Amino acid sequence: MDSRIITISREIGSGGHTIGRLAAERLGIPCYDQELIEKVAQESGLSQEYILEKGEDTPRTGLLTGTLFYDRSYSGFSVQDMLWEAQKKVILDLAGKGPSVIVGRCGDYILQGKADLLRVFVFAAPELRAQRLRETYGESEKNAIRRVEEKDKRRRAFYRLYTDIEWGETRNYDLTLNSGTLGIEECVNILCGAYRKE
Amino acid sequence: MDSRIITISREIGSGGHTIGRLAAERLGIPCYDQELIEKVAQESGLSQEYILEKGEDTPRTGLLTGTLFYDRSYSGFSVQDMLWEAQKKVILDLAGKGPSVIVGRCGDYILQGKADLLRVFVFAAPELRAQRLRETYGESEKNAIRRVEEKDKRRRAFYRLYTDIEWGETRNYDLTLNSGTLGIEECVNILCGAYRKE
Repeated sequence: MDSRIITISREIGSGGHTIGRLAAERLGIPCYDQELIEKVAQESGLSQEYILEKGEDTPRTGLLTGTLFYDRSYSGFSVQDMLWEAQKKVILDLAGKGPSVIVGRCGDYILQGKADLLRVFVFAAPELRAQRLRETYGESEKNAIRRVEEKDKRRRAFYRLYTDIEWGETRNYDLTLNSGTLGIEECVNILCGAYRKE
Repeated sequence: MDSRIITISREIGSGGHTIGRLAAERLGIPCYDQELIEKVAQESGLSQEYILEKGEDTPRTGLLTGTLFYDRSYSGFSVQDMLWEAQKKVILDLAGKGPSVIVGRCGDYILQGKADLLRVFVFAAPELRAQRLRETYGESEKNAIRRVEEKDKRRRAFYRLYTDIEWGETRNYDLTLNSGTLGIEECVNILCGAYRKE
């Protein structure tokens, strides 16, 4: 397997998903998002809602959530562990089909050493992301800020739990893009240029 | 002052300086490096060698070097503090002249809120940087690795001492570029594209 694949890791509200979709369209390659969820649902038997909620973030509640002290050995092989294994299998299968864009779900970690990756992290200032959530998804001001903060924390914790990658740390990527200052369109341009370099 | 200015912060051996120079050439704007050093020498009365060695890295020796516990109040206003003030003045003057590329010397921190910045961080895996130092500057293998490690530490410490920016941390930049995986030429392309976006 040596397809050139863009993996996009992104902060909620940064537009990383949109950037991935637009870049894939322009490059004429698939962007796996809904199809990925559907395949993981088939593979795991879990609902698409559960996968969307738990597939890349630690659970919302629980005393130990989001801390370094969370230890899976307390509860053995959990439903989340099963979901992780199913996601891993589906992402490896999809990557084997040829060039594509894979948004989120630890694609960068799962595919390392197994494909020719362009590993991208998209981020923006929290207040800009909250604004985007309000404008795009109609969230209230208070909810949007809380959602940004909580999601960041849960996603970072998920990466700590299942990977050896520190989420959002410069040196784990080929490219990090501040979509808040560069703009969505310029991020797409940069991504397409960097992908085509060979 | 609202010139569009590229500030490049870079790890030693990453090619960040070369990327800045090539991008400036292609954009038809000045890249301040040698001229900056000369002006700081005039402003401060210090030698160019001293400025090259101490203008963006903490000193090589000393028990407290590179730690969070270094406290300038122990020694009052040091020669390095004087150099910092001179560099700040020169960088602000140069930025006032129009669009340019400024490599290193905390340009990103000094110019924040004072110019229309494209803040870039260029990095690469330590072994690739050591290899570049060997090939470009004829360093021995052992020396090259040691120099990379030491310089990273001293530059990070300098940023901690004089700025509120954590050097190399994703969220302090508009763009971070892994020159080791992207290649020098592609980094120049990305930089020029992102600069022209307006």
